[in-house]
Amino acid sequence: MPNSRRPDETRRSERSRQAILTATRELISEVGYGKVSIEAIAARAGVGKQTIYRWWPSRGAVIFDSFLELSLDAGGEGMALPDTGDLEADLKLVMRATAAEFADPEFERPVRALNAEIVNDPGLAAQYREKLARPVDEAKKARLRSAQRAGQLAADADLDLVLEVLYAPLFQRWLHRSGPLTAEYADALVDAALRAFRP
Amino acid sequence: MPNSRRPDETRRSERSRQAILTATRELISEVGYGKVSIEAIAARAGVGKQTIYRWWPSRGAVIFDSFLELSLDAGGEGMALPDTGDLEADLKLVMRATAAEFADPEFERPVRALNAEIVNDPGLAAQYREKLARPVDEAKKARLRSAQRAGQLAADADLDLVLEVLYAPLFQRWLHRSGPLTAEYADALVDAALRAFRP
Repeated sequence: MPNSRRPDETRRSERSRQAILTATRELISEVGYGKVSIEAIAARAGVGKQTIYRWWPSRGAVIFDSFLELSLDAGGEGMALPDTGDLEADLKLVMRATAAEFADPEFERPVRALNAEIVNDPGLAAQYREKLARPVDEAKKARLRSAQRAGQLAADADLDLVLEVLYAPLFQRWLHRSGPLTAEYADALVDAALRAFRP
Repeated sequence: MPNSRRPDETRRSERSRQAILTATRELISEVGYGKVSIEAIAARAGVGKQTIYRWWPSRGAVIFDSFLELSLDAGGEGMALPDTGDLEADLKLVMRATAAEFADPEFERPVRALNAEIVNDPGLAAQYREKLARPVDEAKKARLRSAQRAGQLAADADLDLVLEVLYAPLFQRWLHRSGPLTAEYADALVDAALRAFRP
């Protein structure tokens, strides 16, 4: 939002922006990724199509921002991971929150719809990696590098591999509904990853 | 196949059965899981519909057997994992083969189509777990239990978690096309899992 606007105008704009992103996620959950139109988003959000096009160049752009917003919300303070100096405690906090999100129908429904599309669409998979997965992964890796400097994680650990060992089991269990997504499970994944990559 | 038949009749039956399963996998790759019909399978395999219904009660049953056959073929000697007494060597052999399969377009295409369906279909996900994933996982766990008895894996390791740490990163990387599926990657996963769950 440009900050040269008057405060109430800025507030109104932010309200519209949030309404648009929320409407987008709701529609993805209800009709699937492929069938969400700018018209339907505008109608659901109670704004004109021109309001959407003022902020986003395309349907794909607003859909991605709606997911990005979800990731930012989930992280609380933007995307940065907590860094109390205790890697195990910080990772357990984050992984428990992640497990809880994926167990929450409101959160997981649009993410599931996106994943169903990604499986068969290499172009969408690439967009997902670049615009959503990579920025989040970079934030996580910043925390892991801090742990490497503190001697809590092997200095030569492949950080992409560390993230995969931490998150992929949770992702697969969620996607295939193959087991419970509990705090205990989140803790067990952190324990396994820390044993695998200890200094 | 009933083994009371004459040898050439048995051979002919087995040829038809294989043609049906191959046709089913080809059609899933081409038109998607949801659109494969018994009629189309029969036409592609060059058999009558009644031949299919003689061996399988439903469309779902023949589709699942076509995937099961793929898993059995991939395993070579049925589903059992090699047990040379060296857990690291055996797991690297199996994980390298798994990585190569998922990197092979002919193998991965029907599996990708199945996964796209599973994401949004809890009933299909349950069938997948029961009929495909569970028998394969049990075969893998038998190998891990042998390693526990040999003192090569922690006696109290949660074997479901061990399998997830081994396979889920490969699965996620394949599904999201987020990195190369190489022999080096397969080895790195085995090394990480063995460090995480060493005695």
